[in-house]
Amino acid sequence: MTELDALVGRIEAPDPRVALAAQRRLDRLTKPPGSLGRLEELAARVALLTGRERPRVVAPVIFTLAADHGVVAEGVSPYPQAVTCQMVENFGRGGAAINVLARQVGVRVVVADLGIAGDVAPWPGLVVEKVGRGTANLARGPAMTREEARAAIGIGARLVEDAAPDCVGTGEMGFGNTTAASALTAALTGADPDAVTGRGTGLDEAGRARKVAVIGRALAANRPDPGDPLGVLAALGGFEIAGLVGVILAGAGRRVPVVLDGFIATAAALVAVRLCAETREYLLAAHRSAEPGHGRLLETLGLAPYLDLGMRLGEGTGAALGIGLLKAALACYDEMATFKEAGVSERLS
Amino acid sequence: MTELDALVGRIEAPDPRVALAAQRRLDRLTKPPGSLGRLEELAARVALLTGRERPRVVAPVIFTLAADHGVVAEGVSPYPQAVTCQMVENFGRGGAAINVLARQVGVRVVVADLGIAGDVAPWPGLVVEKVGRGTANLARGPAMTREEARAAIGIGARLVEDAAPDCVGTGEMGFGNTTAASALTAALTGADPDAVTGRGTGLDEAGRARKVAVIGRALAANRPDPGDPLGVLAALGGFEIAGLVGVILAGAGRRVPVVLDGFIATAAALVAVRLCAETREYLLAAHRSAEPGHGRLLETLGLAPYLDLGMRLGEGTGAALGIGLLKAALACYDEMATFKEAGVSERLS
Repeated sequence: MTELDALVGRIEAPDPRVALAAQRRLDRLTKPPGSLGRLEELAARVALLTGRERPRVVAPVIFTLAADHGVVAEGVSPYPQAVTCQMVENFGRGGAAINVLARQVGVRVVVADLGIAGDVAPWPGLVVEKVGRGTANLARGPAMTREEARAAIGIGARLVEDAAPDCVGTGEMGFGNTTAASALTAALTGADPDAVTGRGTGLDEAGRARKVAVIGRALAANRPDPGDPLGVLAALGGFEIAGLVGVILAGAGRRVPVVLDGFIATAAALVAVRLCAETREYLLAAHRSAEPGHGRLLETLGLAPYLDLGMRLGEGTGAALGIGLLKAALACYDEMATFKEAGVSERLS
Repeated sequence: MTELDALVGRIEAPDPRVALAAQRRLDRLTKPPGSLGRLEELAARVALLTGRERPRVVAPVIFTLAADHGVVAEGVSPYPQAVTCQMVENFGRGGAAINVLARQVGVRVVVADLGIAGDVAPWPGLVVEKVGRGTANLARGPAMTREEARAAIGIGARLVEDAAPDCVGTGEMGFGNTTAASALTAALTGADPDAVTGRGTGLDEAGRARKVAVIGRALAANRPDPGDPLGVLAALGGFEIAGLVGVILAGAGRRVPVVLDGFIATAAALVAVRLCAETREYLLAAHRSAEPGHGRLLETLGLAPYLDLGMRLGEGTGAALGIGLLKAALACYDEMATFKEAGVSERLS
């Protein structure tokens, strides 16, 4: 049995009875039934997927995985590739958006280099597990070998096991990775590349058209088979995307909520669900990204995002806000008084 | 000069130059321009309205004002009126949703009794400033006299002066107050009562139809003049709604962000804006309530809510989540490194 088989084999469908018990508690709390809206749905979802009637999230971790992409040779990003490395160094100094938002929300960030082209100036806590120094150019052939994709999945999964979080968030950094995510979306959902390709970190319309053409060439060169998710991932993904597949599968295997960031993370989630359908039950979509392909992925996965703030930064920034909302929802669920405890009269009719 | 004239006289239009300076800083931070979406807009708005290039929110306060409504005699709420008092006692013990969410977000809650019919068991910090013991039944004539409405506005404004917050949130508790808010919305916007009346804390469709009829009778009995906002407020409002008008005007006068909760608070905000148009610049709509009249108010005020979670609880719960988002936005704005500070390359083109 391979490491991937073992990872998938641990994922079980949740027991629906717990959701009923959670709903009973929600309806006894001092508020009109349903009046906390999606916060109630979120608390019930977490009760369901953890199998715990009173779930707690006290040690959430966002896994921000970074890598470079050979496809940047096609001019799909307006930033130089060195920015992946520089931004990861910025993470180390606490100066990036993900650092700030994680501090606000009270979530730890694990940063891992799964395949940055250059060498990041290290800091205590930085994980360096390079599968390569940037992927191959997916416009000309597979970005990774199947073995590289498996290796990256394994690294992501072990990061989760080592951190032992009670809630997993996903994050990423890698110039070129919206191209990979759009290619994965097109290959796995059958969508037209033009409909699922956006401007990434700041292309103009001509740049976006070039990116669509690159994705068309990638699909022609690789002829991905949607029935072979590992093959699709290897051909069109990236080291950090494959790592996130491992993070997501490991989170589902541990029965903790997996809070997806935006477009890249949700592309990884669709690969994970194609590898193991039960993974779907553990996913929460933090927000709707401004990237157009994200909507198609959310629809395919049947996920309704909680926030819609026009964000398109990645790093795990949307996941951080989503985990903040999840903590608020669970706090209401856990700490509010019931009608009986508070001596508040229930409705007349 | 009356107290209300003085309150209104202090409110000034913000200086647009500060927003430009804020935008320059946002564009220098280590992220693609605009990629934090509405968090960037929120930070720029707060810079604009406070007149500070680096605004901080460290002492936000939600003002949760409570009162009873004579209109409950018409059967517009499925809960007994005593629940207003019981829920305020629940606030005192920290068991309500607003207590939990305020703890999560780090915001103080000031609870004030502006006119509950019964006597709340007091606790240190509870403000008791009853303008009356419940309003008169607005279906038969004015809910308040103009003097009562002025008195309640003054109490709300003084609560803000005493607390000296750097961000104001609004909250309320008062069975029957969605009926008052729907009546205010119909009177001030010209909307059909049916289009702006929802199920409140849990009416069925027959109950909602009864509530629409009650609002129709209220409009016929009071013949409110939309050109006389104080008169409309007195006729169709409530003590806590008038108090919130004072909270909102005082917040605008202090040049701090005023984070509106849901339907009731936004009805108070429209009264405040009709009393003083510049107030509009200080308002932030935390969320879109499930109450149908809220959409009409937001549209009339030109406010785009930040969250849409199907919440309809009141108490200030939406404002608490909105203040959490505002703190996150300002933290990014204040704490993120610039490209220069971080040594990150800027875009090539």
